Amino acid sequence: MSIKNFYDAGSVAVIGASRTPGKISNAIVRNLISSGYRGNIYPINPKESEIENLKAYPSVADLPEKVDVAVIAVPAARVLEVAAECGENGVKNLVTITAGFKETGREGLEVEKKLLALCRQYGMRMLGPNCAGMMDTHVPINTSFAMGFPQKGDIAFFSQSGAMMVAILDWSREAGIGLSKVVSLGNKADLSEIDFIEEAADDPYTRVILCYIEDVTDGPRFLDVAGRAARKKPVIIYKSGTSQAGALAASSHTGALAGSDLAYDIAFRQCGVIRARTITDLFDLAVSFARSPAPGGPRVAIVTNSGGPGIIASDNVEARGLTMARFGKETLDALREGLPAEAGIYNPVDVLGDAMDDRYRFALDKVCADPNVDSVVVIVTPTATNKPLETSRAVIEMKEKYPHKGFFGAYIGGSALAEAKEVLNRSGIPCFTFPEPVIASISQMVRYDQYRNSPENQRDLEFEDIDRKAVKAVFYDVLRDNRLVLLGSEASEVARAYGIPAAPVSLAVTPGEAVEEAEKLGYPVVIKVASPKILHKTDVGGVKLGLGSPEEVYNAFLEVMENSQRLMPQAVVYGVEVQKMMPRGAELIIGMTRDVQFGPMIAVGLGGIYVNLIKDVSFRLARGLSRQEIEKMITETRAYTLLRGYRGEKPKDLNALMDAVGRLARLALDFPEITEVDVNPVFAYEEGLSALDVKITISVS
Amino acid sequence: MSIKNFYDAGSVAVIGASRTPGKISNAIVRNLISSGYRGNIYPINPKESEIENLKAYPSVADLPEKVDVAVIAVPAARVLEVAAECGENGVKNLVTITAGFKETGREGLEVEKKLLALCRQYGMRMLGPNCAGMMDTHVPINTSFAMGFPQKGDIAFFSQSGAMMVAILDWSREAGIGLSKVVSLGNKADLSEIDFIEEAADDPYTRVILCYIEDVTDGPRFLDVAGRAARKKPVIIYKSGTSQAGALAASSHTGALAGSDLAYDIAFRQCGVIRARTITDLFDLAVSFARSPAPGGPRVAIVTNSGGPGIIASDNVEARGLTMARFGKETLDALREGLPAEAGIYNPVDVLGDAMDDRYRFALDKVCADPNVDSVVVIVTPTATNKPLETSRAVIEMKEKYPHKGFFGAYIGGSALAEAKEVLNRSGIPCFTFPEPVIASISQMVRYDQYRNSPENQRDLEFEDIDRKAVKAVFYDVLRDNRLVLLGSEASEVARAYGIPAAPVSLAVTPGEAVEEAEKLGYPVVIKVASPKILHKTDVGGVKLGLGSPEEVYNAFLEVMENSQRLMPQAVVYGVEVQKMMPRGAELIIGMTRDVQFGPMIAVGLGGIYVNLIKDVSFRLARGLSRQEIEKMITETRAYTLLRGYRGEKPKDLNALMDAVGRLARLALDFPEITEVDVNPVFAYEEGLSALDVKITISVS
Repeated sequence: MSIKNFYDAGSVAVIGASRTPGKISNAIVRNLISSGYRGNIYPINPKESEIENLKAYPSVADLPEKVDVAVIAVPAARVLEVAAECGENGVKNLVTITAGFKETGREGLEVEKKLLALCRQYGMRMLGPNCAGMMDTHVPINTSFAMGFPQKGDIAFFSQSGAMMVAILDWSREAGIGLSKVVSLGNKADLSEIDFIEEAADDPYTRVILCYIEDVTDGPRFLDVAGRAARKKPVIIYKSGTSQAGALAASSHTGALAGSDLAYDIAFRQCGVIRARTITDLFDLAVSFARSPAPGGPRVAIVTNSGGPGIIASDNVEARGLTMARFGKETLDALREGLPAEAGIYNPVDVLGDAMDDRYRFALDKVCADPNVDSVVVIVTPTATNKPLETSRAVIEMKEKYPHKGFFGAYIGGSALAEAKEVLNRSGIPCFTFPEPVIASISQMVRYDQYRNSPENQRDLEFEDIDRKAVKAVFYDVLRDNRLVLLGSEASEVARAYGIPAAPVSLAVTPGEAVEEAEKLGYPVVIKVASPKILHKTDVGGVKLGLGSPEEVYNAFLEVMENSQRLMPQAVVYGVEVQKMMPRGAELIIGMTRDVQFGPMIAVGLGGIYVNLIKDVSFRLARGLSRQEIEKMITETRAYTLLRGYRGEKPKDLNALMDAVGRLARLALDFPEITEVDVNPVFAYEEGLSALDVKITISVS
Repeated sequence: MSIKNFYDAGSVAVIGASRTPGKISNAIVRNLISSGYRGNIYPINPKESEIENLKAYPSVADLPEKVDVAVIAVPAARVLEVAAECGENGVKNLVTITAGFKETGREGLEVEKKLLALCRQYGMRMLGPNCAGMMDTHVPINTSFAMGFPQKGDIAFFSQSGAMMVAILDWSREAGIGLSKVVSLGNKADLSEIDFIEEAADDPYTRVILCYIEDVTDGPRFLDVAGRAARKKPVIIYKSGTSQAGALAASSHTGALAGSDLAYDIAFRQCGVIRARTITDLFDLAVSFARSPAPGGPRVAIVTNSGGPGIIASDNVEARGLTMARFGKETLDALREGLPAEAGIYNPVDVLGDAMDDRYRFALDKVCADPNVDSVVVIVTPTATNKPLETSRAVIEMKEKYPHKGFFGAYIGGSALAEAKEVLNRSGIPCFTFPEPVIASISQMVRYDQYRNSPENQRDLEFEDIDRKAVKAVFYDVLRDNRLVLLGSEASEVARAYGIPAAPVSLAVTPGEAVEEAEKLGYPVVIKVASPKILHKTDVGGVKLGLGSPEEVYNAFLEVMENSQRLMPQAVVYGVEVQKMMPRGAELIIGMTRDVQFGPMIAVGLGGIYVNLIKDVSFRLARGLSRQEIEKMITETRAYTLLRGYRGEKPKDLNALMDAVGRLARLALDFPEITEVDVNPVFAYEEGLSALDVKITISVS
């Protein structure tokens, strides 16, 4: 059942419709009528014969047809009964306005579950409960109780908050912006933003998809749907609830570094969703994306009639990750020749305070002809002499002459420039008052364009030489031992089964065994206490490095055991782990932590014991992680500087690191029972890597 | 001569006044008249007898009195002649509108210097050149050519950009905000923002001082004047030109970490100036500060009729460094008892969508009575039932009842809430549309309040046990040797002369001398190649650690010299430095770099060879640096975590570190010829510090 029926309904019943103006259930009927809706409207109320000049019916059972949409606006206690009646009478879709469900606590949640079960039973889809309804300006239809109906337009907005829906309606009215669809998602018991994004992606009347959400409830499906939608049109989301940071107690470094909002950040980025950081951002980006195609690249030229705003714009270009275009010689010569001597001919181009449209036109023509320019920001401040309206016309001419360049305006002024701004905006040239939102828009548009041009359908990385059985065998032993934390020797084995070059570790339970293992590995060796309870082994004197002889190993065994028993007497100690001592390399960390919505997140960055102090880690979702993306995540860290060869050192083996990161992602995807992995330190050498310490935690079931 | 005369002028001459409407020099005369200016206005133009119904004079020499202000609007070529004439005829102040000076290049700069010399010669003060004039709404007077005169108010605005002045005039008109003074600073040849801030600080009609500037030309005076002004009223500055980063090539770590805009950041913070990050920020903060006193602390309560905006506000509270108030048991009990069962009684308090003014009043009353609440943000979204205007009245009542709490509004909606917003704003309760600017304002107000309550007149730190002569003696030797980079032994001596605990270093030019010095210091020792040209000694094999015997020292000397000569044959080598090997401690850096405007900046943070990778450094100006501020700068770094005892280690000697930072600041202030200092690493122990490697660069003259 497509959710298109919600918008394109042939008939709508309003259950619980009231005759009393001001009541929500009356407002819905009025809104349906005044929206110009052309289908049949059936108010349902057993006590009335007529509502808003429409015949009222006692119940859905009495209707002359099976309606496409029933809007439920009865008290919460009656919703289950009414929904069942809808199901029995062939209603296809429900819009449940009534509140008093999940949002009120456990009992409400139970009722909501029953309501959803009814929908499933009768094959009905449902919006809400606890929602304000929905609108489509092109059908047109309005099953909401919100005041006002927006003008037709090409921006769709899906909101998890009724208040934000009201806010966007207000904004659109005051800014003269048209909307295509507006949906209040409510409790998202059945349908969520994912369904509406999916539908809007193919809606010919929608150019830009906006959302306000507080959570995503099906991470994998969100990534899939939003990722495909974002290839078709921009999806801009304001996600609130960023402050619940650190709610999850994480025992690994990687988990502690991730925090709780990060998963949304990287998930949005990975599926091309543009994240708005403020409500104003959300609106500004909507306007820019709706009006203008993305510029072809990051090189921005600025043409201004005033120095200050030119500097402000330049500051923002740099801060937003764009670049100031460098003009070619030809352009500079032409500008020098054609502009007054006091004009600034380097970017930003200052056409001076007495510039009229002709000078703007001249400068824009030269600047746009330059192949080093991707987009141009026209700044106009009101002066005694300039002609803003004519200047706007000159900009529009230039846009027609150079259709592949991006054009944007920052007209710094109120009423004196209002008409000139409006003319630009109507011609598909986003024009704001100050430079900041202009540059922010260009930056997001360029990033979005990069996403659209990135290769599609990234498949998860595959490796031939992986031994899944070996991993299962280790996990089996761990569970039989009633543990969830792997011993170092076990974790090392798991890593090696996936081709992550962990230094071999052997478990020894007597000093003699320790010596035996050391002889096998070759000196020097390291020994560490083996106990799943002791996470920071160095801190309890549980580690001895650089042991070069059987005697040293023998004594170190005794010492390590004694230290551990003295400082952590309650910890079960399995013996010691003997490991070949590896030469030092660039000290890195790779790790994995699992987000409840978006699954495994892979980390890479600077390692060592100060990893939590240094916080130099870049994250990606394991799902869909490509080699290009792995390379990109490494280049985002300071560890990359180290890998390229810092302070005269030789470059380290970037390929080996990328491979190890990919293999860790594969491991995390193959074994959902792994909750956390820390590989720290990983020593990177000129050739190859060595993972010195692998920590793995699993969960039961 | 006080600049008060500029505003409070008894008479104004407009030199170059024109009869032609639309001309700048005509607009000035008209603006003077229409502003309601009560003094004498003298248009000066030898070709006219009357301009705008005022008698025109051929020159200032012909005027019946010595005028307070002459506005110069003649062509650039005539400005010097006219200025001289003004001086000869007793004019006290000039407003030079004419452009064509410094901003046009070197020739213009020369003329501007001559113009300034004339002012000095005749004791005239000057605004401009290349400015748009100035206004005072309380006098009233308007010597600008800008269109429109703002309504009376209590916000002063000083702008280095004419376009930004026009922007603020427009904004004030459209937002219905009054202004006290508006000044276009132009080229700041004589008077700058510093002079106008100084005057406005004592102006009874001004509550808030706003500035747009592109640079500060007298750092020490700015710090002094702005710091004193900020104790009297908020000074909010938008400083553009942040993108010139890295223009200065810095040879030290500290210099490279500082960047170019950082000095403004720390200077503003140090003198209590509030830095606006966007133009919209500048306006929003102006409104908040002008309307409301600062709340007494950072604990924010939120009362909302809608969940979504409550979450958004909470996110922002955390992101802006404020805290969500935790209500006491009494408050919670009262809210639970008095609000509907579905209401949210924990912060944010959700009074639900059907809340009218009475429920807001009730919740606000309980929340404001809680001693754990410093300020309250009232969020209103339009619903079918609520009464926003009555809600505003309830908020105002509560403000009267709880005058010591901060009250703020976020009314999310347009026309439906416009009147209710206006009522709040008129009552001194800043009300915006979205929560973001509200929380941003509270955050800045709380920070500003902390500045106002911080101890005044911080004197630079003084130390008794400092040997300035020893430093001079070292510098003398360095200069005699035609060097600017000190040898390690010299730098160590300078540091120790100021009580910074640098490990002693001796220079040895033969292997025998090296052994001799090692015997004096005691084993183990370190030796390093001594050459001002070799900055990264480890990289050329120029360092040998842990030498335990005379033989080892002897051989190490030879090896180090050979390595250095092989790898850097062009570097002059003075021998080797012998230093006692110190035990490892927490690895820190302290350093100094000098900003051209604001003087020495002191840094502290995590040290070691990866200092530029890790970038964990906090900066302050050396000037006025107090012990409290040193402690604060240390707590801002991750190094602080290390100092408190990281992962089970014992805490390190914070006092010794604070002392060393203070002594470095003293050294930098005492010797302006020191351009850069890097002390890296500094080992911090449980007791005391040891500075292992001190690098000092000086400049000539």
